[in-house]
Amino acid sequence: MQRTDLIPQKFRQGAERMAQAFRDLDQVIVAAHVNPDGDAAGAVAAAGHVLRSMGKEFMVYAQPGLPGYLDFFSMPGVVHTTLEHPPFKPRCAVLLDCGEPDRLGRELAARLPELVTVNIDHHLGGDGMGNAANWVEPTAAATAQLMAYVALAADLPLTGELATAIALGIITDTGGFCHGNTSADVLYLTAHMVEHGCDIALLRERLENTWSRGRLTLWGQLLQRARLERAGSVCFCPVFLEDLRKCSALKEDLEGFVEQLRRLRGVHVAAVLREDSPSSCKFSLRSYGSIDVRAAAARLGGGGHRNAAGGTLRADMESAGAQLLAAIAEELDAEGVA
Amino acid sequence: MQRTDLIPQKFRQGAERMAQAFRDLDQVIVAAHVNPDGDAAGAVAAAGHVLRSMGKEFMVYAQPGLPGYLDFFSMPGVVHTTLEHPPFKPRCAVLLDCGEPDRLGRELAARLPELVTVNIDHHLGGDGMGNAANWVEPTAAATAQLMAYVALAADLPLTGELATAIALGIITDTGGFCHGNTSADVLYLTAHMVEHGCDIALLRERLENTWSRGRLTLWGQLLQRARLERAGSVCFCPVFLEDLRKCSALKEDLEGFVEQLRRLRGVHVAAVLREDSPSSCKFSLRSYGSIDVRAAAARLGGGGHRNAAGGTLRADMESAGAQLLAAIAEELDAEGVA
Repeated sequence: MQRTDLIPQKFRQGAERMAQAFRDLDQVIVAAHVNPDGDAAGAVAAAGHVLRSMGKEFMVYAQPGLPGYLDFFSMPGVVHTTLEHPPFKPRCAVLLDCGEPDRLGRELAARLPELVTVNIDHHLGGDGMGNAANWVEPTAAATAQLMAYVALAADLPLTGELATAIALGIITDTGGFCHGNTSADVLYLTAHMVEHGCDIALLRERLENTWSRGRLTLWGQLLQRARLERAGSVCFCPVFLEDLRKCSALKEDLEGFVEQLRRLRGVHVAAVLREDSPSSCKFSLRSYGSIDVRAAAARLGGGGHRNAAGGTLRADMESAGAQLLAAIAEELDAEGVA
Repeated sequence: MQRTDLIPQKFRQGAERMAQAFRDLDQVIVAAHVNPDGDAAGAVAAAGHVLRSMGKEFMVYAQPGLPGYLDFFSMPGVVHTTLEHPPFKPRCAVLLDCGEPDRLGRELAARLPELVTVNIDHHLGGDGMGNAANWVEPTAAATAQLMAYVALAADLPLTGELATAIALGIITDTGGFCHGNTSADVLYLTAHMVEHGCDIALLRERLENTWSRGRLTLWGQLLQRARLERAGSVCFCPVFLEDLRKCSALKEDLEGFVEQLRRLRGVHVAAVLREDSPSSCKFSLRSYGSIDVRAAAARLGGGGHRNAAGGTLRADMESAGAQLLAAIAEELDAEGVA
């Protein structure tokens, strides 16, 4: 298979356009949304590798830095958490995986007007963030996938750290080849990178084997506490500040927990309600197929996607829990789910 | 990409040979090892589909039937759990994913001498089980992967139930594209099937979202009980008969639990010891990379692979736990792991 054959027809023009846009840049800030996840970090790293191969000066900016579980991941250069002392005077920016300017971090958002910007994303919206060029493809599984096509259009082989960066983004945003966005294109791209030495098994191992003792204990307690509602169609679990403290666990240790509850047989909606203060709680909802938890979240002022949504409730846990379960029940009633 | 291009060069001759062997069969028992897992069931189903497309009579035999979590999976015909009343007089057998005759189930093992047998497997050993033809490829990720190549060599499109069967085997034996056997070949094959309509996201959802309430409660208790040994390099968890009873959980609800313990940061070896009777315990070991738990298991009369091994100890839990931890420590000492 020719390298450029890996770029799906529908993405070819965009990839070529972006490769050209990259060639026109220099003194570049490369950045994604704040609190970068694996796709944001992977896309940023991939953009850095492409710029480096083109001989450009660039700096990586991430607010407030990469999360601890990505410590193993090698970025192309220092990760700057401020723009106060840049290594050069930035003239351009490549913006990645970020639907809206506000999510770039305050410093970078304020600088945008004075920069030549190129924007690449797979989230809906944000089409206009690049003043020089925009490439927004909601059918792509990951922004890193789009960066792979930019690299291929720039005639770079998908090997070494570039391939690892792309694989990181793909693995993150497909849930490890689990979600419905795991397209044939994504699998062909991954197959090609594995064929050329990318060790996805090692990458997944490093991503997934980072449980702390506190996380293990916390999950243990919460799995026992989770309760079924509405004849088993809803699984609900409240999490108190006290739980985190007692287990020496962090908020981030809850990541993935609501998905775990959704795995219960018969459960249509999984809901986790986390206490943030005596008068504020954060909720996360997950569902399958046609069940729309975004609609349930919207009733409470939250948002998200059909199968993954969330929001904040200004109430104590008891009241917030009642509101949350009522909103879910209303949505299930509206959809006719027993 | 041409369909036959999907067959790696190293597997072409074998696939052609097996396609021819299938053409020579009729009145066929299709079977894998007892207590079939996803790869065994997937390979059996795939072989049934190939035989059906060739106009052959066949029956699926599985002892003691498929596990409950595969209820959703559509087999090509009734799953026979005995050979006492076959729908035809069996003349031939296709044996899949089974390293030794004993693991076929007593009835079928006893019948082997009177049958024309073809054997396809990716486990080491068992090379001689087919008296008409053998194809054993330890570098294949799954027996279902080999069946895909047989189907392609027989000029069948990898679509519909045939593709689902192959994907089931691949997903099972690669741990959801997690393990080191997730080769480029496996990914190209999966990409091709997804391109032609195979819904791997739905398949994974059905495979993974089958937790019972009892399983959730059991894991909750055990996650809290798991303890670190040897300065955090070993995570050990004993499971008593009483635990299963109290949580209304089954032995099979422990599946995946030892892998979960291995995800703890810093843990080299995860060990679960399950009480089967007051004087017998079963142990499961998992490790990463170079750490050889097969060697530790062998010290106790067990076996397995380098990173996944197990066995049975004729002792009570206390004594068995001490023996197990000593064997692991001995192995880690031998390998120089602090």
